[in-house]
Amino acid sequence: MKRIRLRVAYDGTDYCGFQLQPEKPTVEGELNRALSELTGEDIYVIGASRTDSGVHAMGNAAVFDTESSIPADRFKQALIKYLPADIRIMESDEVEAGWHPRKNDCIKTYIYTMSFGDTENPLLRRSAMFIKKEPDIKKMEKAAAFLIGEHDFTSFANPSSQALTEGKSAVRTIYSIDIEKKEMPYGGTVTMTIKGNGFLYNMVRIIAGTLINVGRGFTEPEQVKEMLEAKDRTKAGPTAEARGLMLLRIEYT
Amino acid sequence: MKRIRLRVAYDGTDYCGFQLQPEKPTVEGELNRALSELTGEDIYVIGASRTDSGVHAMGNAAVFDTESSIPADRFKQALIKYLPADIRIMESDEVEAGWHPRKNDCIKTYIYTMSFGDTENPLLRRSAMFIKKEPDIKKMEKAAAFLIGEHDFTSFANPSSQALTEGKSAVRTIYSIDIEKKEMPYGGTVTMTIKGNGFLYNMVRIIAGTLINVGRGFTEPEQVKEMLEAKDRTKAGPTAEARGLMLLRIEYT
Repeated sequence: MKRIRLRVAYDGTDYCGFQLQPEKPTVEGELNRALSELTGEDIYVIGASRTDSGVHAMGNAAVFDTESSIPADRFKQALIKYLPADIRIMESDEVEAGWHPRKNDCIKTYIYTMSFGDTENPLLRRSAMFIKKEPDIKKMEKAAAFLIGEHDFTSFANPSSQALTEGKSAVRTIYSIDIEKKEMPYGGTVTMTIKGNGFLYNMVRIIAGTLINVGRGFTEPEQVKEMLEAKDRTKAGPTAEARGLMLLRIEYT
Repeated sequence: MKRIRLRVAYDGTDYCGFQLQPEKPTVEGELNRALSELTGEDIYVIGASRTDSGVHAMGNAAVFDTESSIPADRFKQALIKYLPADIRIMESDEVEAGWHPRKNDCIKTYIYTMSFGDTENPLLRRSAMFIKKEPDIKKMEKAAAFLIGEHDFTSFANPSSQALTEGKSAVRTIYSIDIEKKEMPYGGTVTMTIKGNGFLYNMVRIIAGTLINVGRGFTEPEQVKEMLEAKDRTKAGPTAEARGLMLLRIEYT
């Protein structure tokens, strides 16, 4: 028996999220089916990040146990013909028995993409939230600075977040938030790249929704400091749309 | 009667190209249908660039004549509810009667995108050609330099190109070719941005296919000079896949 770790990339547009749900298309469901077909065993993966419906990933992680003789690094290639075109294994390796993708320290990087312009660019419709008016990225950067470091992020979490309902700590560390604008014909994109040691449920989308409101001029950058201190979800901005979010990478430390 | 010019963006994945074909989904067919429904007139657009099946655009152009009282700049907004999500009008303005999008001098910019890595990144599957091995972009730049300027591009055109079959000039001017690499987890992309005063049929894709072969080490940069001088399609590289091509903009001069 060996434990294999997969690095999973997917276009989440046509899935009801990562986590297995009966009768619905999920990334986890496709991985279980593909691995079971490939190995002839009954395989159930354990995922690192249970991304929401419509959210994308370039480097989510998942593990499974197998008796298969397929070498660990060959799974990425062997699974291609069993997976739909919108899910691919980017890397596969062997990890220690019992190694768990959610119980090991890691640094996660997410990218949130917004598109602006008079009309929505159809080439970005699956991967960006359309916000029409070009946001003020200087203000967004100023607001983002208040979130860097170790803080209690209760205000920026969905109240149904497991950490909150189970009375666990809502303290997380954000290492960096980079805002970048890219011009395109008839508009462009603004991306927020955020790196941290863990994120509460919906935390990246709520930070994105809050910074978008700052960029639009609805909220002043300084108010973000007050939102953080309030430890109250109703004080922060809205949850930005799922389609703009992508889990870029997970680095186990 | 007035003539309206549209700037059209589309995700070409699910279309059999721009040009109208009976019984097949085309961008032109969708524009004609949407405009006819909006105005109640029988409208047929004249397109600038008849992009191939699977090719994308951020700024193709098309014109049509109408008696409608809708102000020229309102068409982009008014057409949203008549168009499918993968086609949008980015700008609309009035032009002189008889102004023709293919009979006016212009500068066209195309972007060709290739993705590399051990496995194809599923988030790029609609918009990039997968070439697996990372290409040598220094070599690609060296090869591209031979194509800059005014040349006879017969070797880099599909022999069914209208200019060739009608015995017209195959001389075109390329102003610039920029090659750029972007790293991503488990791979990345290389883009070729090419700007010129006109392109023969399949010319951008044949240039891309030729430069990919240079980047892969199958062809030396200097051979591209010989290919150009040969004025023979069989001497140049293959036609790169349609999905990697996007018409970025058309500037009328």
